[in-house]
Amino acid sequence: MNETFVVVGGDAAGMSAASKAKRDDPDLEVVVFEKGEWVSYGACGLPYYVKGEIQSLESLVSVTPEEFRDERDIDLRTGHEVVGIDPDRREVLAEHDGDDVIQSYDHLLVATGAQAVAPPIEGTDLAGVYTLGSMSDGKELREYVARARDGESLQQPDRGPACRYLEDCTGPVAVVGGGYVGIEMAEALAANGFEVNLFQRGERVLKGFSDETSEEVAEHLRDRDVVLHLEADVRELSGADEVDAVLTAEDSIPVDMVLLGTGVRPRTDLAEDAGIDLGSTGAIATDAYRETNVPDVYAAGDCAEAVHVVTGEPTYVPLALTANRHGRAVGQTVAGRPTEGGDVAGTAAIKAFDVEAARTGVLDHEVARDAGFDPVTETITAKSRAGYYPAGGSVTVTMTADRGSGRLLGASLVSEYGEGAVHRSHAVVAALEEGATVFDLENYDLAYAPPFNTTWDPVLVAAKVLSGSIR
Amino acid sequence: MNETFVVVGGDAAGMSAASKAKRDDPDLEVVVFEKGEWVSYGACGLPYYVKGEIQSLESLVSVTPEEFRDERDIDLRTGHEVVGIDPDRREVLAEHDGDDVIQSYDHLLVATGAQAVAPPIEGTDLAGVYTLGSMSDGKELREYVARARDGESLQQPDRGPACRYLEDCTGPVAVVGGGYVGIEMAEALAANGFEVNLFQRGERVLKGFSDETSEEVAEHLRDRDVVLHLEADVRELSGADEVDAVLTAEDSIPVDMVLLGTGVRPRTDLAEDAGIDLGSTGAIATDAYRETNVPDVYAAGDCAEAVHVVTGEPTYVPLALTANRHGRAVGQTVAGRPTEGGDVAGTAAIKAFDVEAARTGVLDHEVARDAGFDPVTETITAKSRAGYYPAGGSVTVTMTADRGSGRLLGASLVSEYGEGAVHRSHAVVAALEEGATVFDLENYDLAYAPPFNTTWDPVLVAAKVLSGSIR
Repeated sequence: MNETFVVVGGDAAGMSAASKAKRDDPDLEVVVFEKGEWVSYGACGLPYYVKGEIQSLESLVSVTPEEFRDERDIDLRTGHEVVGIDPDRREVLAEHDGDDVIQSYDHLLVATGAQAVAPPIEGTDLAGVYTLGSMSDGKELREYVARARDGESLQQPDRGPACRYLEDCTGPVAVVGGGYVGIEMAEALAANGFEVNLFQRGERVLKGFSDETSEEVAEHLRDRDVVLHLEADVRELSGADEVDAVLTAEDSIPVDMVLLGTGVRPRTDLAEDAGIDLGSTGAIATDAYRETNVPDVYAAGDCAEAVHVVTGEPTYVPLALTANRHGRAVGQTVAGRPTEGGDVAGTAAIKAFDVEAARTGVLDHEVARDAGFDPVTETITAKSRAGYYPAGGSVTVTMTADRGSGRLLGASLVSEYGEGAVHRSHAVVAALEEGATVFDLENYDLAYAPPFNTTWDPVLVAAKVLSGSIR
Repeated sequence: MNETFVVVGGDAAGMSAASKAKRDDPDLEVVVFEKGEWVSYGACGLPYYVKGEIQSLESLVSVTPEEFRDERDIDLRTGHEVVGIDPDRREVLAEHDGDDVIQSYDHLLVATGAQAVAPPIEGTDLAGVYTLGSMSDGKELREYVARARDGESLQQPDRGPACRYLEDCTGPVAVVGGGYVGIEMAEALAANGFEVNLFQRGERVLKGFSDETSEEVAEHLRDRDVVLHLEADVRELSGADEVDAVLTAEDSIPVDMVLLGTGVRPRTDLAEDAGIDLGSTGAIATDAYRETNVPDVYAAGDCAEAVHVVTGEPTYVPLALTANRHGRAVGQTVAGRPTEGGDVAGTAAIKAFDVEAARTGVLDHEVARDAGFDPVTETITAKSRAGYYPAGGSVTVTMTADRGSGRLLGASLVSEYGEGAVHRSHAVVAALEEGATVFDLENYDLAYAPPFNTTWDPVLVAAKVLSGSIR
């Protein structure tokens, strides 16, 4: 009798695991429960869909349910919400159209993902308040943008004068949160003619990046007429049925809609109810093979924590590549070849209008010190191409290393879009993964030609300067 | 009494060493002899100058002689040709305006660079035959292009019909050699309206890259109307005083000019005469600190060999970054802090019209086997950005690893210009430098966002496929 691998959640981690397990062991029965209708979709593409650069929501789907079923021979059950796991009986209980479905498993993957978190304030349930976590969120936001651009639903006579009464009749709107989603949505909305107010609780956007990166992105956002409200204490979203203003400690800013980009939290209820341990981050704890404390039950993707390559400590970084990588590793493991899938470096990238930025590793000195390092940081700005080459801009690199050992700890890069801050960060990620020092990095034989960099790539310039300051 | 550091050759390695030594030890007397008038220039930029994208030859100079003298306090003597080194007396003999100059040294750096090599055939001394190694070469070529575009010097009535008699009156021309210089010059000349014939002795251009990269670049050259003559056995350049045809074993191709891009060789005469050993590559042998067999005499840059990070063997890769890096290391060493400056990975990058390519490490299976590896190679083509993202192209990655250990040996990447083949290669270089395996590489937490890559960057896709094929 064949073994059965059951997956709860049909997005990046879940479908990667299902596909890999079935490919490596075609005899395995692979059953995936997904509560919604969409599987294997690129949530990272939603801002571009809302912006209007991507025309169909379907194009965000990398593999369709039919392909999973017909071509990959995976028993994919959409519209099935798993409501219980019984580790003793090795069964999951799902609900589908009001019916209960019981499915036994030999191996189980919990890939329940994360959900958008609304801040603990009044008014987040008003009409006109959105989050961007799911395909249906994306659909609603796109519809909102379309309506607003058609001049509908904005004619609310009792509001004060604002740009929404001007010719283009779009805006003002609010984005709460200056992280990836907030900034990408600020771009998406501004590109559609909205006056965008971006509220950030802290003193800078993209707080995981370096100060210098944040500052450059913030300046660029202001250049593009995004109104930045930094150190903004958003107290309430006000309105009768529909939101009509954002209230901060000092101010009331009239808006037509609010996008909450205030982070996510792992969906762990199902796991907790089944006796699966959470880690110190609040996400599901696993070993290096993504196995939880419950034998044969794995967790991967945005619901699970992972180990940071620099600190060696558990961390919660819910991003797409990790979900894919760890899901795939679980698939291999379940198919008979135990596979770790690697740690995370906390790498992230963003495009904001016409700038691009990436960060990786540990930049925060407090975090570095807690992990036993003595962090030193340097920031350089260098040309993105040979000085004489008739194109290009600049790349600003912030780099952190340990004073004693020279070990590289992290970096944050920003450049004009197309000038390579993101791809150049790959060298730093690789160095971090290998536990390299900044003395190693400064000697890397990176590719050089005038259309791509100065003889010393900006990453090498940063390494040289940082190396010089800690020797 | 202060020590004296003498440098022979005022380009990348020499001036990097001089500048670093003086900065680290301001008490050091630093004397640089340069036989020409130009120092510290970006020879890599010459094709763009000939093309006309760079307007002034001076802009290729990163630091002027005056800046070296006045701001960096370096005794820079241009127009001084060093004709002898006497290690016993610790002196160099230079000639300047017919006078002899004797200079004693405590530390000496030989940074005599490389020179373009003409193939051993008849006619390479004809007028109209050029190489591109020096600033004056660049100047002459630019002047040739300008004359040709003005319709001058092409009216030679006894030639047969060819495109040079057509309206634009430029071409045909020949480029002999399908390496970096040959291809960059093919672009420079084609952009100026010349009909370019590119002759390559082997069966593919860019022989240091993978077959797939070569093929993609070759196809692109053909798309841009470069006439590729592969496996071309160029026997002679014919003409009375001026070159008028390229003769191959089979054919005679009429041309107005010939650019020889047939490689370089290290300038080692001076070193050899002084009893400095050459290595197996024919370039000057050094230890890890770039010190030669003669105490306190260093060699760096295009005249010296270096150790390959993958094979651990000496190799000769005369490129700008190594020259800068090793020059700088010698400067630090001489100033009192012994510094190695690192090995080389044989990394190179090129832009050819609208494609970009990079290579690093060992791709040739014979070379890999000689170094004790059992090489396996895979090639993948992947999208350069998220499939749904409204821009982008593809990246083709060839990757080689050792079957037994999984150790990464090399990679070759090609993409449309701007789609990141070159910057994406940085991850591979870093992995090579650290002796990583392809199993390590496939788990790297590289930056991802839809405008920059698919969730798995093409480099990771290649690593996954290669890893799968050798497990």
